[in-house]
Amino acid sequence: MMAGMTGTRWLDTSEQCIWRSYLAATSLLEDRLDREISAASGLSVIEYGILAHLSEAEGRRMRMSALADTVLVSKSRLSHQVARLERDGHVRREVCPDDRRGAFAVLTDEGYELLVSIAPVHVDGVRTHLFDQLEPEQVQQLAEITRRLVAHLRELPEVVRCPSARSGAGAK
Amino acid sequence: MMAGMTGTRWLDTSEQCIWRSYLAATSLLEDRLDREISAASGLSVIEYGILAHLSEAEGRRMRMSALADTVLVSKSRLSHQVARLERDGHVRREVCPDDRRGAFAVLTDEGYELLVSIAPVHVDGVRTHLFDQLEPEQVQQLAEITRRLVAHLRELPEVVRCPSARSGAGAK
Repeated sequence: MMAGMTGTRWLDTSEQCIWRSYLAATSLLEDRLDREISAASGLSVIEYGILAHLSEAEGRRMRMSALADTVLVSKSRLSHQVARLERDGHVRREVCPDDRRGAFAVLTDEGYELLVSIAPVHVDGVRTHLFDQLEPEQVQQLAEITRRLVAHLRELPEVVRCPSARSGAGAK
Repeated sequence: MMAGMTGTRWLDTSEQCIWRSYLAATSLLEDRLDREISAASGLSVIEYGILAHLSEAEGRRMRMSALADTVLVSKSRLSHQVARLERDGHVRREVCPDDRRGAFAVLTDEGYELLVSIAPVHVDGVRTHLFDQLEPEQVQQLAEITRRLVAHLRELPEVVRCPSARSGAGAK
């Protein structure tokens, strides 16, 4: 409907179809794994990721800022998720007295036990809904495709916010 | 750390690496497109998707339940996002008097104009951060991989919730 506008490299019909297929596959997979983990444990897939990353860190503890970079969520969203995990006794937050920004998240023994008990559910989901669906060469293709995307996305400069944008000025 | 447990088909090192690369690529791409749309308009990528799907529907209106299936978010999350869009005047909700569950979301003229003004930003992001990063054969590979995953994930039965699971019984 907007293909007449100039300057934008619009997607053709095939690209639109591939983009929608990508969106559907990634959303459905995330949603499925989320439901499976939630049904087994009450955790969201992000909470599971937080516990898993903490379990692999030295002393089962990480700075909140490092945890946000690893789990790939925004700091505000992480803070919300960690608060929920803390309320349920799976994570403990510790603040360094000499550095107010340097709060740590620490995995509790109870959190570790929960993680161990649900890891088989999650691994089974990843295998059943992703790896088992693909031919061996497709798994290698996916590895190379995602490697390229990560290399590109990690090197991008920050997005600059346009203060006047919400007025709707522009393309019409 | 848990590879000694039986019955679970654990991921080997290469599969773990591919799974983490998949998670990083999909999270970073979603996050980047979200930031670009947000910087240009204040909308999240999900809100953008809601406006885009409504713009293509007959009468620019959809039942909330159909919209949730199309945008691939849970009904509660959709309800929250539509409430925000309604507050800002981009969407209007209409309830059928003879069917209380049959609420519709309707795109307003203001919502349509906002969508038109930011569509170039979004398309540019998808092209720059996805299609431009891949060789033509990789785009075709991605199409086939995501087609397979969608076909599998759409046919799955519902997840059955296990009421006793949060006690942490099990694998350790």
